Amino acid sequence: MSDTRLLILSRDEAHYRRLLQKEAMPGLALLGRPGEAPTAELVAQAQVLLGEPATLAPWLKEAKRLQWAQSTYAGVDALLQPGLRQDYLLTNIREIFGPLMSEYVFAHLLSLTRHLPLYREQQKQGQWQAAPYQGLAGRQMLILGTGSIGQHLARTAQHFGMQVKGVNRSGREVAGFAATYQPSALPRLLAKSDVIVSVLPSTPQTRHLLTPELLSHCKRGAILFNVGRGDLIASDVLISALRQGLLGAAVVDVFEEEPLPAKSPLWHQPNLIITPHNAAWSLPDQVTRIFARNYRLWRAQAPLEYQVDFRRGY
Amino acid sequence: MSDTRLLILSRDEAHYRRLLQKEAMPGLALLGRPGEAPTAELVAQAQVLLGEPATLAPWLKEAKRLQWAQSTYAGVDALLQPGLRQDYLLTNIREIFGPLMSEYVFAHLLSLTRHLPLYREQQKQGQWQAAPYQGLAGRQMLILGTGSIGQHLARTAQHFGMQVKGVNRSGREVAGFAATYQPSALPRLLAKSDVIVSVLPSTPQTRHLLTPELLSHCKRGAILFNVGRGDLIASDVLISALRQGLLGAAVVDVFEEEPLPAKSPLWHQPNLIITPHNAAWSLPDQVTRIFARNYRLWRAQAPLEYQVDFRRGY
Repeated sequence: MSDTRLLILSRDEAHYRRLLQKEAMPGLALLGRPGEAPTAELVAQAQVLLGEPATLAPWLKEAKRLQWAQSTYAGVDALLQPGLRQDYLLTNIREIFGPLMSEYVFAHLLSLTRHLPLYREQQKQGQWQAAPYQGLAGRQMLILGTGSIGQHLARTAQHFGMQVKGVNRSGREVAGFAATYQPSALPRLLAKSDVIVSVLPSTPQTRHLLTPELLSHCKRGAILFNVGRGDLIASDVLISALRQGLLGAAVVDVFEEEPLPAKSPLWHQPNLIITPHNAAWSLPDQVTRIFARNYRLWRAQAPLEYQVDFRRGY
Repeated sequence: MSDTRLLILSRDEAHYRRLLQKEAMPGLALLGRPGEAPTAELVAQAQVLLGEPATLAPWLKEAKRLQWAQSTYAGVDALLQPGLRQDYLLTNIREIFGPLMSEYVFAHLLSLTRHLPLYREQQKQGQWQAAPYQGLAGRQMLILGTGSIGQHLARTAQHFGMQVKGVNRSGREVAGFAATYQPSALPRLLAKSDVIVSVLPSTPQTRHLLTPELLSHCKRGAILFNVGRGDLIASDVLISALRQGLLGAAVVDVFEEEPLPAKSPLWHQPNLIITPHNAAWSLPDQVTRIFARNYRLWRAQAPLEYQVDFRRGY
């Protein structure tokens, strides 16, 4: 079997190069030199690409020998844009984001329910003043998306005694959720949910899913987390829902336009918490382990893990 | 069997009165009228007292018929002061604080590791800037105290992938801890711990347990939580350890003097987070359930739950 030629198109190229050299990967030939900028000629030689979707996308048309691209991210929407080729195997990263997403969601949720910013301000004033709170036990969490991230969030919520429901395309049952529903159940689910977390990918079905009409069903004081994709909710819809009190608060890591423009009114919305799309990031050593496992499957001509279905969009 | 006369000595007296009237408690006679201030005469009639330890303590000498006192708190040190009588059954509240303590500890821990205050400041400036972080997985948590609160914290830490060790008086094994040790092991345990959480009660053995010498063994950047009792560490020792970098940060809910005096330098120590002794509070309905269960045992002349051992101090 001839060598497999890999080109790394990632801002972490040097790191990936070091990590790959530590793995036993017989038959792998790394194209280019460390730190070398990619060229059309290099790309044209590669059978396999590894990198961030937005970095890979502009090179697709030059990749004349491309058979497989391994995304270093979970979200591959940059590779699913209209007009881009889909005649290769695309795999992404899954499974590893659950724990980091749970940390993010519960960091912010507990910070809000336990009034951490208030105590921070009170401490500056030397003020000893307890604020009442309720525990999470018994509160309702609704998770949009029941894949590995949603499942980890569900387990974390259950650990804290929350009641957890899920929404997925088919409404199929998923371990860790008390019940799962199709999207058509959203109006009545939102009416009962204290916390709503979306981990949905960007697809034609999820784009602008959260309309003003749908949000009008939310329970008073509900907290929305968006850690999936920014186009779940239009920025003007989000800000109106927060201003009108359809949502009590929102914690948002992903936006329609990223970085969020400096002039966006979202920055200054008091009941909105903004983080710069880093709720869960891909650690190169975890990505490398997934790539290495897939590479061995590839050499064995076996099906790869975490293949993206271009038709479904994830 | 004659009636059992109960006097409620609690700032939540009205609430407890309402809750007790909903429970089936045959033979219970509530002394006093709603909202009536306690008098020596009322106290002298009571066989049973229910209330906060510091509220009960000054009445002990008047309670000539006292047989049993139910504390509404876990911490009963106000009733263990030298010179106070110990010729009655003292029961406290246990089991119910674990989930709230886990919320408190992980709210603050995740807020620190995931840089929530930084993002809050950046948002004010309209600044989109990701800060690196590590997940909790693989980090070491040391829990001082392996009772029900320590066990819940251990399960929460394990859910987030942390390695959890415990310290108790005898070093006996406890479910949920990878290993448990006697206090003599503290120097080498502290050297490996990223997070140290004390849920210890106040006893002669725990008072000022964290000496400057012991803290000198801490791993660089370690975070100390004190949610047990304030006298675990003297205020001047805490502030020196934070200033000298023996500790990376501390999150403290309990102090030697409470409320923490306005002039205390602790308020202005940058790597110290202060909360006003409300990491986990007793919800009257939970306390009432415990009291009602104990009351039935009392009427059946059976041993009560959660009896405090005056000799051990908890």
